[in-house]
Amino acid sequence: MTYSKTDLLALKDFYANQLMNNTVPFWFPRSFDKECGGFLLMRDADGSLIDDDKAVWIQGRAVWTLSTLYNTVEKKQEWLDGAKLGYDFLNKHCFDTDGQMFFHVTRDGRPIRKRRYFFSETFYVIAAAAYAKASGDEEAAYKARLVFGKCIEYATTPGLLQPKFTNTRPSKGIGVPMIMMNTAQQLRETIGDPRCDEWIEKWIAEIEKDFVKDDIKCVMEQVTPDGSIIDHIDGRTLNPGHAIEGAWFILHEAKHRNNDKRLIDLGCRMIDYMWERGWDKEHGGILYFRDVYNKPVQEYWQDMKMWWPHNEVIIATLLAYLMTGNEKYATMHKQVHEYAYKHFHDTEHGEWFGYLHRDGTLAQPAKGNLYKGPFHLPRQEWYCWQILENSLKTR
Amino acid sequence: MTYSKTDLLALKDFYANQLMNNTVPFWFPRSFDKECGGFLLMRDADGSLIDDDKAVWIQGRAVWTLSTLYNTVEKKQEWLDGAKLGYDFLNKHCFDTDGQMFFHVTRDGRPIRKRRYFFSETFYVIAAAAYAKASGDEEAAYKARLVFGKCIEYATTPGLLQPKFTNTRPSKGIGVPMIMMNTAQQLRETIGDPRCDEWIEKWIAEIEKDFVKDDIKCVMEQVTPDGSIIDHIDGRTLNPGHAIEGAWFILHEAKHRNNDKRLIDLGCRMIDYMWERGWDKEHGGILYFRDVYNKPVQEYWQDMKMWWPHNEVIIATLLAYLMTGNEKYATMHKQVHEYAYKHFHDTEHGEWFGYLHRDGTLAQPAKGNLYKGPFHLPRQEWYCWQILENSLKTR
Repeated sequence: MTYSKTDLLALKDFYANQLMNNTVPFWFPRSFDKECGGFLLMRDADGSLIDDDKAVWIQGRAVWTLSTLYNTVEKKQEWLDGAKLGYDFLNKHCFDTDGQMFFHVTRDGRPIRKRRYFFSETFYVIAAAAYAKASGDEEAAYKARLVFGKCIEYATTPGLLQPKFTNTRPSKGIGVPMIMMNTAQQLRETIGDPRCDEWIEKWIAEIEKDFVKDDIKCVMEQVTPDGSIIDHIDGRTLNPGHAIEGAWFILHEAKHRNNDKRLIDLGCRMIDYMWERGWDKEHGGILYFRDVYNKPVQEYWQDMKMWWPHNEVIIATLLAYLMTGNEKYATMHKQVHEYAYKHFHDTEHGEWFGYLHRDGTLAQPAKGNLYKGPFHLPRQEWYCWQILENSLKTR
Repeated sequence: MTYSKTDLLALKDFYANQLMNNTVPFWFPRSFDKECGGFLLMRDADGSLIDDDKAVWIQGRAVWTLSTLYNTVEKKQEWLDGAKLGYDFLNKHCFDTDGQMFFHVTRDGRPIRKRRYFFSETFYVIAAAAYAKASGDEEAAYKARLVFGKCIEYATTPGLLQPKFTNTRPSKGIGVPMIMMNTAQQLRETIGDPRCDEWIEKWIAEIEKDFVKDDIKCVMEQVTPDGSIIDHIDGRTLNPGHAIEGAWFILHEAKHRNNDKRLIDLGCRMIDYMWERGWDKEHGGILYFRDVYNKPVQEYWQDMKMWWPHNEVIIATLLAYLMTGNEKYATMHKQVHEYAYKHFHDTEHGEWFGYLHRDGTLAQPAKGNLYKGPFHLPRQEWYCWQILENSLKTR
């Protein structure tokens, strides 16, 4: 199948409408915590609060979402004020004395948990960078660049962060080069930074060389430092939605480089490989984990359908279609879009449920918790809207 | 309903037969690692090896299972030799230089991961104690007592182990008093230790005072140090199968104390409360996690059916029935027994699957991995066999 211009126009309107009239209003303004700062995001299906704790990843991501809407959609004061509420909370409460960030804090910002990796920091960078652009706040720009530098240091200095595993079986995950690439892209597109291009190229090269396995048509989630497959349960575990998220970051980079053919080809291969492994041919939807050799996966929720892989695959397939015109990506996009909006979208209270069983029935109804908040879904609706709008201009 | 003497006899034969002709032969002798020591237990449905790593919990538990069979069922040399293989591996490879144990090691015993709690140690204690009884090895008895002492120290010295969370919201789990109680019971019943009775009494008192909430008919999984409910997502999360495992440890203690009425009443209340919260009235089986106030549970697999809670509930309900004669426990036992052997038992290759969806369909077929091995199922079949045999003698 293909998408006609009319289809694309309808899709653009659909995403814009969902974002502005359904997803964003579910979260804001009600989640602004005017008393303690930051956002109250842990919410049940109907929006009622189930916990007033604050997940640092999600606080940062919400600042990014609000700032990005302000920067690209409409100069709405409520969004800028909201972003500032979150940005100030992050600065005031979410850094430990050693400069590392916490993972989970109380409503009033007292630390509950710190983790042994630096994704709170990467989401701080995109938050501060987007907020700096929105507000013109020079200090926010300075801080975004400072913490980006720290992330590079964490990513490239073995042993700087306390390890979770011993050195017996060294491994590295695709998460670091992938998220760092996206962090650098966001930094470049908001306030700019001279380090971004070079590092993005390095991270893409690492993904291509060490994680993408053309011989077995697979993108690994974890490998040895030199890119070999680790033939143990954890090492064999694939995360198709995550790999496809990485694929669209690479396609996004290809676009930035005037449709660089090598990167388009790399991103599309990653989508092809992981769609084949991740799409559930029996029930539809993207399976959470797979084993590279189809052995049993250990993580209990391995065959559940979660919201965010669907957001990422919707973006990736639409972007691949718009960049290549290859009809197979329109087919994939239509499949995943229809599955996702049918099964995840809550037609009663808005936004999406997060957690379905393999067969598509609801496992639990929370809209927000320590891991879910206003990020993957609004980012997907916003990004798809933007690329459709740009693409339609030239059609 | 009630169980007649004929029913109980049939049940006894069923458990004995399953244990000896189905469960134990699935694991042994094929899992003995004569090359590197220890056991190769990470196995697919058909018994083929999916990973040669070794989970320290499960290595210890397998030593306990083999030694206990030797001590109570039959003086089979293969079991004693197997237990020694595992016991030696634990001593040689599973202790770090600081005396703490690892959680996960390679086939040849190089450490992969150490965790911030001491359950590897508690399972070492029951392994070494049961092995000491089986073998008459005095050093094993010494080591069991030594590590039991360390466990008491870890359990009672705040800050001795590196904490996973900050001190902002202090909490304690029911796992420590529960598992320590069972560890002490095992120690007492194999090689004896003068510390056991006093500590068991303290741990039961802690469970009764801090975790059992009669006003809301609930056993909490986590509370503040003084036993208050922590009204946040994690603090509200209940684990019905775990609480009911704790209940039968208490009933077991009641039996040891000539059917102590207070303890029988406590154990039965715990079963009643958590059966009501954990039994899935729609599909049958024990739900993994519940929220004390029925809010959404965060852990993704919260409504899956896993093997081990069923093993624990089968034991608890049968023991409660035999000790009280209350017919409701026979009804519960029949329900959970029938559900479990219908849905978990693999009629083709033996043993049980570990992971079902809420509706009872198979989620993944592994028989062994980092968390599952020859423990909960053989313990259940062995324990039910023993208590039925003892009970039938007096009927």
